[in-house]
Formats: sequence, structure tokens, C-alpha cells
Amino acid sequence: MQIHLINPNTTASMTDQMVKVASAISNTDTIITGRTPSHGPVSIESHFDEAMSIVGVSDEVLRADAEGADGMILACFGDPNIWAVRELTNKPVLGIAQAAFIMASMVSTKFAVVTSLQRTVIIAEHLLNQYGYGHLCQQVLAVDLPVLSLEDDSAKQAIINKCIEARDAKGHEASAIVLGCGGMTHLRQEIEDKVGIPIIDGVQSAVKLLEAMIGMGLQTSKHGDLAYPIPKPFMGDLNRFGN
Amino acid sequence: MQIHLINPNTTASMTDQMVKVASAISNTDTIITGRTPSHGPVSIESHFDEAMSIVGVSDEVLRADAEGADGMILACFGDPNIWAVRELTNKPVLGIAQAAFIMASMVSTKFAVVTSLQRTVIIAEHLLNQYGYGHLCQQVLAVDLPVLSLEDDSAKQAIINKCIEARDAKGHEASAIVLGCGGMTHLRQEIEDKVGIPIIDGVQSAVKLLEAMIGMGLQTSKHGDLAYPIPKPFMGDLNRFGN
Amino acid sequence: MQIHLINPNTTASMTDQMVKVASAISNTDTIITGRTPSHGPVSIESHFDEAMSIVGVSDEVLRADAEGADGMILACFGDPNIWAVRELTNKPVLGIAQAAFIMASMVSTKFAVVTSLQRTVIIAEHLLNQYGYGHLCQQVLAVDLPVLSLEDDSAKQAIINKCIEARDAKGHEASAIVLGCGGMTHLRQEIEDKVGIPIIDGVQSAVKLLEAMIGMGLQTSKHGDLAYPIPKPFMGDLNRFGN
Amino acid sequence: MQIHLINPNTTASMTDQMVKVASAISNTDTIITGRTPSHGPVSIESHFDEAMSIVGVSDEVLRADAEGADGMILACFGDPNIWAVRELTNKPVLGIAQAAFIMASMVSTKFAVVTSLQRTVIIAEHLLNQYGYGHLCQQVLAVDLPVLSLEDDSAKQAIINKCIEARDAKGHEASAIVLGCGGMTHLRQEIEDKVGIPIIDGVQSAVKLLEAMIGMGLQTSKHGDLAYPIPKPFMGDLNRFGN
Amino acid sequence: MQIHLINPNTTASMTDQMVKVASAISNTDTIITGRTPSHGPVSIESHFDEAMSIVGVSDEVLRADAEGADGMILACFGDPNIWAVRELTNKPVLGIAQAAFIMASMVSTKFAVVTSLQRTVIIAEHLLNQYGYGHLCQQVLAVDLPVLSLEDDSAKQAIINKCIEARDAKGHEASAIVLGCGGMTHLRQEIEDKVGIPIIDGVQSAVKLLEAMIGMGLQTSKHGDLAYPIPKPFMGDLNRFGN
Amino acid sequence: MQIHLINPNTTASMTDQMVKVASAISNTDTIITGRTPSHGPVSIESHFDEAMSIVGVSDEVLRADAEGADGMILACFGDPNIWAVRELTNKPVLGIAQAAFIMASMVSTKFAVVTSLQRTVIIAEHLLNQYGYGHLCQQVLAVDLPVLSLEDDSAKQAIINKCIEARDAKGHEASAIVLGCGGMTHLRQEIEDKVGIPIIDGVQSAVKLLEAMIGMGLQTSKHGDLAYPIPKPFMGDLNRFGN
Repeated sequence: MQIHLINPNTTASMTDQMVKVASAISNTDTIITGRTPSHGPVSIESHFDEAMSIVGVSDEVLRADAEGADGMILACFGDPNIWAVRELTNKPVLGIAQAAFIMASMVSTKFAVVTSLQRTVIIAEHLLNQYGYGHLCQQVLAVDLPVLSLEDDSAKQAIINKCIEARDAKGHEASAIVLGCGGMTHLRQEIEDKVGIPIIDGVQSAVKLLEAMIGMGLQTSKHGDLAYPIPKPFMGDLNRFGN
Repeated sequence: MQIHLINPNTTASMTDQMVKVASAISNTDTIITGRTPSHGPVSIESHFDEAMSIVGVSDEVLRADAEGADGMILACFGDPNIWAVRELTNKPVLGIAQAAFIMASMVSTKFAVVTSLQRTVIIAEHLLNQYGYGHLCQQVLAVDLPVLSLEDDSAKQAIINKCIEARDAKGHEASAIVLGCGGMTHLRQEIEDKVGIPIIDGVQSAVKLLEAMIGMGLQTSKHGDLAYPIPKPFMGDLNRFGN
Repeated sequence: MQIHLINPNTTASMTDQMVKVASAISNTDTIITGRTPSHGPVSIESHFDEAMSIVGVSDEVLRADAEGADGMILACFGDPNIWAVRELTNKPVLGIAQAAFIMASMVSTKFAVVTSLQRTVIIAEHLLNQYGYGHLCQQVLAVDLPVLSLEDDSAKQAIINKCIEARDAKGHEASAIVLGCGGMTHLRQEIEDKVGIPIIDGVQSAVKLLEAMIGMGLQTSKHGDLAYPIPKPFMGDLNRFGN
Repeated sequence: MQIHLINPNTTASMTDQMVKVASAISNTDTIITGRTPSHGPVSIESHFDEAMSIVGVSDEVLRADAEGADGMILACFGDPNIWAVRELTNKPVLGIAQAAFIMASMVSTKFAVVTSLQRTVIIAEHLLNQYGYGHLCQQVLAVDLPVLSLEDDSAKQAIINKCIEARDAKGHEASAIVLGCGGMTHLRQEIEDKVGIPIIDGVQSAVKLLEAMIGMGLQTSKHGDLAYPIPKPFMGDLNRFGN
Repeated sequence: MQIHLINPNTTASMTDQMVKVASAISNTDTIITGRTPSHGPVSIESHFDEAMSIVGVSDEVLRADAEGADGMILACFGDPNIWAVRELTNKPVLGIAQAAFIMASMVSTKFAVVTSLQRTVIIAEHLLNQYGYGHLCQQVLAVDLPVLSLEDDSAKQAIINKCIEARDAKGHEASAIVLGCGGMTHLRQEIEDKVGIPIIDGVQSAVKLLEAMIGMGLQTSKHGDLAYPIPKPFMGDLNRFGN
Repeated sequence: MQIHLINPNTTASMTDQMVKVASAISNTDTIITGRTPSHGPVSIESHFDEAMSIVGVSDEVLRADAEGADGMILACFGDPNIWAVRELTNKPVLGIAQAAFIMASMVSTKFAVVTSLQRTVIIAEHLLNQYGYGHLCQQVLAVDLPVLSLEDDSAKQAIINKCIEARDAKGHEASAIVLGCGGMTHLRQEIEDKVGIPIIDGVQSAVKLLEAMIGMGLQTSKHGDLAYPIPKPFMGDLNRFGN
């Protein structure tokens, strides 16, 4: 089983880190291939960064499809342009936010999300509503640290503190916590050890959910709005996407 | 990996049929064990049948936990008493309605549910709202046939017709269809061949999702309302559940 | 007019206490008969306790119907298995949560619920959404005391304090308060005297609402999903419910 | 027990008709007093008619309060200005739409509303959302006949036909029907005989619910936005409402 | 272009203040005419005050229509009886709450409302839901000062403090603030200078939105429930509204 | 006043057509400048086309900002990447869907949307929910014709027919209709003449709303998630967007 993990930002070290975590948890017959786009922002921390990632991500999705991948992970907690990307292939494509929310919804009645920057809180809130999990989420909290600084030790402690705050919020206790950034992936186990409730990472979740979908032959429906895009010319730098 | 498929009704032939489908799709190292309760209704077709199934199901969940099962499937499309059951064990327990909705939400933006009796439509609608998928579901349709008659050929054709009706509903087209009854499990492939869009069965979905959860070590949170029930005496026939 | 007050737990002293309060407020021609089930938990403090109460409650509902009761009260704030129970009889059956919410909705635009254990908060929240009162409820607060300890003086003070907290919550003031446990019934007047806003008890509310329904000849609709359960065999300990 | 039935329109014959129905169903110790305002429209069939009814209704509410009424019915299906009116007195005031919805919510999981004019459908829809019953209502249907023509035989048949349409609506069956106009009150029993499911009239419902509220001493909360209006001058024709 | 600014309360000085602000921001060819009703409360601070304003406001709307006004502003943050008033004329009528919410929705993803009295908070919340902006509003805060005292310096400081509280609310930061009272209109610029985020006044917003609507020839639809009221007699003091 | 109308697709003739309509309705001191991007699809008919338009649109928004535009119109009914675009400038940016919904919400209580392709219906539905107008929209209908064929006479008739269908939909009558595609802009007046209820075009609406916003000095809040993107490197073809 071939799964391509596509990092919507262009920072290869972050791709590598996520592939490492993904590979550690995948089935023995699953091969995780990491892809870092050639075009786009080095990190995704705004609506604009999200939107712009479509170019590089589309390249990688089409390439994955052509290379016979069985499924693709869109490895940014924001699931940027998820419907657009699903149109490009009949192979399942899964965002790590949706994946994490799904896992949380199966082990708790109320969860929280701990994300990186305050300004991305609204992105998480929009996703919760889009997917239908708003009523299951007690709150979205931000450590307010840049995505690319999440490898620091101080970042780790800040995340743990936020998780504990969410777990113990009087009247709004979270029973599980979703890590709201792909850059927190490698910290999951350590955080869970400290916080003592299920800590759910979207990258791991996406790997396992894709294996599940592929295992039952489930593919994106091409009846309706996720059908392949109507072929048409694309101008300028994007003309490789047209025909 | 040990998964117990617990049929909330007491009809062993239906358990066997579901185990057969489940086993066909599970990973090679997954063992599916079917369980038919000793107490309860022979089929589940009303709020009352659902509620009453708790007795027999609880026996089987506790037994599965004691026997070292890694996860349990609650194999009735109605996910009867799902939160109650989740309190009894830290192992993941998954209802086939939630499982099917999750799969549908990853491959379509709008799906439909085709269920057995008209009177169970509201049960499906309640579940859609409970889990958060109401806005993704175009409609819930019933073939209006009893659960235990779904093995007939005429039933199969009625289900196919309803699926086509859902797929083509003007202005409310479904891109995928969830089969709303465990008794339809064995027909999935044949229906999909005829209807041409993803047909999603909850039993298969639950097997694959449980494998995913177990594969990442995810268990029901015991912080919050899904914690183990507070020990206390139970009277009468139910005293085996107290202490 | 005959009303059976069915206590879903098996603690007869609690039944007696509720019958006493109910009788004090009922019309002169109303006879309140208390029923304590023979099967089930001694108190209801979890999803599991709620689910299990169906057995004993069903016995009592069928008995009430056979004995010519005009209506039944399901006297646990959680309205456990309310739809299941309504299927069993055409006589009106009313849960004390729904009854209390209805009363609160007629005398205030925003109310609060004060309940017993923190883990039952979610049950109250689910009920608010199920019945449609979520937008009228400012918050659900728990004193976090076991149901069977609510007779203590310290419990009373804790409840009063929570009610005052709800009344004065800055920006979320409650204009009325619903007591979220049948075990608080006898304290209603005393709490209201201290808090100075309407304190609404579900047992009293249910008595008066049932009298209203019975007085206008209103019975549970048997057209649709609350129709009598389809007759079928029940296995094991539950075979008295089948035919 | 004194209940004033206040007809927001100025047509005394309609008041009399509603009082007759109300008196027939009230407890033996309940006295229903009908009130027809001196100011306002002869019937209520638009947002404007509703809004204008506040003047005459306020006169009657203040008078009822002064005369020692224990509760008031706002006898127009639209519950016009219900919150404004509740501010004027601490006695319970109940609109017939809210009353009918409450009764429907206790005997069915899905009901329908059959109203007079098409243009008032939106008023019913707004009320359903305001009170929280939108999710319980399958549809609102209009016979599209003026309020003051509802005494005709042809009107009766049109209402019966609409009720049957609602009862049998494929996939949207109603289990109970709320009559969406005070002018239909006297037809309730006859319609129910023909349609065979609970037909709920708001006037009867309001009488019984007020008896329930008064019986338990429940009054409008004066803590919060339903407190008495802040005293202040009113100009012109309305100066009797100021001080 | 003729716009009539109708102040639903009878305090002419407040009308003048709002006309002054409106005129300062209107296009050069827009003439703002202030109207203070002859009937009604001197200020609007409750559901009752709102409801009663319909009489005087209707006079002024009909007069504006007769005098050839191109549009009318309903200049009270509560948009009292907005649908009723829209029935009376095909000219656009705009409430200042709806106007302000619209402006806020185009420059922010999350805003807050700062209003006068605590008891009017619920009015703002109802409007947010009615118009569809509830999900965009972080919170509604009250300075808890009477409408007619808002000209004082201490009031100004209290408003500024509330705006800063809303802007900085941890986890619920507002990106823009809507002033929830017509009496705050003249303070807008000064508040914005102090708070540093968009401060939106409904009077200014309504002027500009009406200019926009009139400029494109947009009028209230007379197909549906906003059609002219069905002509009929009105009794008593209100007989000028009938025919 | 300078307004840049940015057509997210690369078809200049469509830009010209929209600029013509926009200019005809703008104030005398408003200058409408049309912009057709150099990169992107020739028409926008899918999630993918929408997502990809960000590249060319961002170029044009930054250019408009640099050239001193006072506001920008995002002239595709889908408001593609609206939040991303709003981050790039403090000048107001308005999508034509939001603009049209706003206008419809001020002249009707229930409207409909008539769009081009069936597969874009879901895009309109997502926008309705995102902005908060879902409860005001009776239905979204598609003529199911490609965007670039909307200039044909047969397309015009198809649109008129759909508008009449929406206007007369039994039980779901629309009081106003929003044209759900920038390519229908030039047909507005002709359709309205035939259908007889307000027909609302987003391009015209956006022009007038932007004039309103600019006229009151209203700009996108830079406090919160619409703040300028955090500067960072962009790789590959997109490096002009980084720094």
C-alpha cells in the first residue's frame, strides 16, 4: 500500500519529521512517501499561506496519482483546499485536521484543539463547522508560537500547559485533545504521558484512516461536486494544470 | 488483533452473516469474533428494541474486555446505547452508523442513507445530528421492509431502487450512500455495481476504523463522562452488573 | 386522574420523597402512585445507569398501562430511554427534564441547569439539544455530589451556591434555574426562597404538565416512530417483553 | 383560578368562539374571561397586524393584572409581542403557538403546522426557531384562506385536506398536527376524527398549560430582560403607558 | 436622494444628534430628514418599549412614503418591528442593527457588540440570530447605562473600556466592534481612535447601505410575506391605519 | 473613488462585460478598473478552479493596493479565497456572492439562488452557511450550463425559467433571487422584467456596497486573523509573494 504524505509547505525537514512519525505507526505493508512541494510558502500560518499552497500541492497530488499512490495525506492542520484537491484524483485524500477530529469523535464526547498561532484559531473553528464537529469541541486554544519554532523545548512545555488547561477547564473539560499543527506530531507521546488523556495527532490519524479506506477499496466519489475538474485552458504559470 | 463483533439482536444467523463480511475485509492479523447476546430482541426495529439491547450487549462487551479483545463493534445501525457501552471498557467500541458516516464524510460532500423501516428513519436522523453529519446528508430513505426479510431478492431490488432514487434526486443528489442496516451488509458490492457510486456499509467501515484505532493505540477516554460507571448495587435480574 | 410516578432507580426512599412532593402539588382529583422498579441500579449517574434502567422502567410502564393509569412520569433527570418508553403505551409519558425545560421556557428567555455530578452535565446538554432548548440555556453547572447524598445539609448549601453563581454569571445571567436531579425535588422551595428567582423542579413540572395533557385528552401519537413496537420474540431474561 | 383570554384582534365573535372552546376544557375551578381590545386590527394576517396589536393587548394585560387574573392567554397564533407583554406583569402569559408546540413536542417526534394564509407561514417558522422546535417540525402548510373565513364549511374541508397531506407526506410524515390559527380552534375535534392523529389547538393547550403553571405558582421571572419596563414618559396616544 | 431617518423614540434631541452624524457622512446629493414620532416612549430599553414604537414609527414611514422618500432608516439598535414596517412601503427600510452587522461582516471574521443596558443584550442576541450573524459575534457586552445618559463623559469612557475588553478577550478577541445603541453614534470616531480597530455605528452604516440600495434601484419585495398588509378595519386610536 | 474589479478567471471578455455593468451603476465619481489575471483558469466551475485562482487574483490585489485603489471586487460567485485575499490589503475586498446575499437579506425574508452548473450548487450552499444566510435561502437551483455559454439566448431563457420556478415553488416561494454567476450580470434587468421580483446581481451589489464602505472609511480589520500575512519566503513560481 502506497501512501504519499504531502506537506503543503515547502520545508523539507518538517516533511521528514512527519514521515518519520507516519512510518512508525503504519502497517508493515504500507509505504509512506514524503513529498515537499516546489512552490509555496515555507510554513502555513494564515488564510493566504493556505490558499497559496494549492499550486505545489496540486503538483504533488497529480504526481502521486500518476505514480500509483493508493492515497494521499494533506499534512497541514487546516486541510487547505481539501475539496479542490479531492477533485484531482479518485484516490482518497485526507487532511490531518479531519483525520484527528474523526479519531477524537470516537473516543470522547468533548475534545479540545491546541494549535500554534492565535490567528489560526479561526481556521480550526471553520474546519470544525465544515466537518460537523463544532458541537464536540469545547474550545480551541493557541500557544501562540510560530509553526517552525515548535521543535523547541519551550514550545513543548507551552503545548503541555495548554493541554492541561483544556483538560481541566472548569465546566468545559476536554476528554481528549487534538494537536492542531503538523509540527507537533513528534511530541504526541510525550504530551500524552504528561497530560494523561488521549492526545491525538492528525498525521498518525490520517495514516491509519487512509489504510482503513484503502483496505476497503473506498475512493472519492466522482458523482457530484468532487468529480474531476472540467478540462479547460489555464493561463500563465499555471498552464500545466489546463488542457 | 482481536475484534469482537457484537450483534445487539439475538439472531445468530445475522451475526454470522456480518462476521463473514467483516472477516473478508479485515487485515490478515485481525481476528473477528462474532457474539450474539443471550438476552434481547430478535431484531431491532424501534426505540424500544434498541433500548432493551443494552442488557445482552453489556454482557458481551464485558466478556470481550475480559477475554482481551482490542476493540468491539456494536453491529446495529442505530448504535444503540453507544455511550453507555463505551463506559464499560477502555477498549474502543464503534457503532456501525458512526463508522459508515465517517467513511462517507471522507469521500463525498453529500451522502444519503437508505434504511429498512420508515419508523427507523428518525433514529438515523438523530444519529446524524448526534455525531454532527446532519449537514452532509441529503436525505434518509426507507425501503420499508423488516430487518429479517432483507435477505430476499425482492429486498435487494428495493434497496437498489432507493439508492438510485437518492443518487438522482433532483437538487439533492447523493454522491455516496450509506446502508442503514446491518442486514444489508452482504449486499454492498452488488448494490455498488448497480448504482455506480460509493455504497458504504457500516460493518466493513467499523472493522477498518477499529483496526486504525487499535493500530495507533487509541482508547476511549476515561476522563469525563465516558469514565467507568461508578460502582453501585444493581437490583433483580441485573445484579450481575453491580458491585 | 391516575398518574404513576416511575423512579428509574431502585431506591424506594427516593421514590417516596418524589411522590410526597408530587402529591403536595397535584390537583385534588389526581392520585399519584409511586413505582420503584425491581431491576436496575440504585441510582442513575452515568450513561450506563440510564441505559440499564429500561428494564425495570418498562415493567412499570406496562403495569401502569394495564392498571389504567392516565399518564406516567419518568422521574429521573435524564429522561432515560424516553422514546422507547413512549412506544409502550399511548398514555402520555413525561420525563422530568423535558417537563422542567418546558416550564423554564415559559417564564424566562435564558435559564440555567444545576445538576449533581460533573459527568452528567453532558447528559443535560444532550437533552437540551434533543428537545430544542439549547439556545435558551446559559450553562449547566454541577455541584459534583452523588445523587444519593443530596439529602445532606451541605448538599443543599452547595446547590444554593451554584444557583446564585448561575443567577449572577456576568454576561450569562440566568433568569430561572432548573434543578437537574430528581433528588433535589424536596429542596425547591427552600432554594427559591434563598435565590429569589424561579427555581423549577422537574417532578412538580411533570405532574402539572401531565394533568394538563390528560385534561385535554392528549396521548402519544401512534402514527410514526412512537407506534407500538412490532411484536417479536425477546430472548433470555427479557422474554416477558416479547410475544 | 382566573385566566384572561386576550384576543389580539378586535373581532369579538372570534373571542367568544375561543372562550367557548377554552371553557369547555378548563378545570371546574377555572374561570375564563374573554377580552377583545378596543384598539387594533380586526384580524391578524401580517407582521404589521401583529405589531399593531400591542396597543390593545397591553391595555388588556394591564387590566387583567389589575383585576387579579392569575394568568393570561395571548390568543393569536403568532404570539405577537410575547416578550413585550411578559414584561408588563409577573403573571404567566402564554401565546397559543408556544402552547401548541409544547403539547406537540410531548406526544410526537415530528409534527406539522397547518395555518391560514401563505404569507403567515414565515411567522410560524420564526416562532418555531425562536422557541426551539424547528427541528421537530416537518413542514408548515397554508390553506391560504383569510382568518375570518375559517368558519365556512369549505374552509374546514381545506384544513382537513392539508392535515392529511401533512400526515402522509412521503419521507416527511407528521405524527401530530398543530392548528396554526386561533380561528381553527372550534374545529379541532372534528379534524382529529377525520385525520386520526393528534390535532393540537393552541387555545386549549394554553388553558391547560396556564392551569399547570398557576397550579405550581410559577410566574414570569423578573430577573433579566423580562423585568418590568423601566418607567418613563410615553408621548401622544400612548401616554397612558408611561409615568 | 431623500432618506428619512426615523427615530423610534420620541426624544427629538437624539434624532437631531443622529441626523447630524448621518448628514456628515452621506453623499452630497443625499438629503437626510429626521423624524421624531408623536406617539411612543422617550427611549427604547425593553421589549415593551420596542413593541410600542410601532405606532409612531408607522405614522412616519407612511408619511415618508407619501412625501416621496427613497428609503428610511429605523434608527434604534433593536430594529423594532422591522418586518412590520417593511410591509408598509416598497421603499427600502433599514434597521441600524442589521446595517452595522452587515458592515462588520465585510471587514472582520469575528466582531463584538457593545450595548447600553444589560437587559437589552438579549435583544441584540435575537437580532444576531434573526439576521444570521450569531456565528460571527464573539460576545455582546453591556455598559449598563441608560440610553439617555450616553452623552455623558463617564459613559464615553465606560464604552471605550468595554470595547477594549472585547478587543482583548482571551480566546474570544473581537476584530471589530458594533456600537449597540443609536445614542452612541456621535462617539464613534473618538472610540475608534482609542481602541484602534474598526468601530461600526449603525446610523452611518444605514445611510451608506441605503444609498447603495437606492443607487441600484433595489426595493422591498412585495412577493411574499413583506407584501403590503391586507386592507382591513383598525379599531380605536389606530383606525387611521385601517381602511 | 477607485474600485478595481478583479475577475478571478482569465477571460477578458467576461471582465469587460462585468466592468460595463459595474460602471453603469456606479456613482459619478467612482472609477471602475477591470483586471484580468495573467495566471489561472479561463472559467471557474469547480473547487479546483476556485483554489487555483488565488495566484492571479493575488497579483491583482497587490497591484490594486499599490496603485491606490480604494476597494476591490472579487468578481466570481464563489468568493474564492476571500479571507486569503483580505489579508493582503487593508482596503475592503468584497466577493460578489456575499454582496448579493447582503442585498437580498435587506429586501426579502426568503430568497433563492440560481446558478450555472449543478456541481457549483454546493459552493453556493457553503457560502450561504459561511456568511450566515443559510436560513434565508429557500433553495439553490442550477440551469446546468457552462459559465462561458451564458451569453447565449437559450441560456437566458433557461435562467428565466429557473427564476420563475424558484419564485413559485409551492411552500418554498422565493421573494427575491440572487444570480449565482458573474456571467449572468448583464441579464439582470431583462430577467427582472420577466420575473417580476427583485433579481439581484452580485457585481452591481458589490459596486454599491464598496462605495458605501469606502464612503464611511471602513477597512478590513488588521486585528485578528485578517492581519497581513506573516512575511516569509515563498518557493518556486510563487517567490514573488514572499520576502
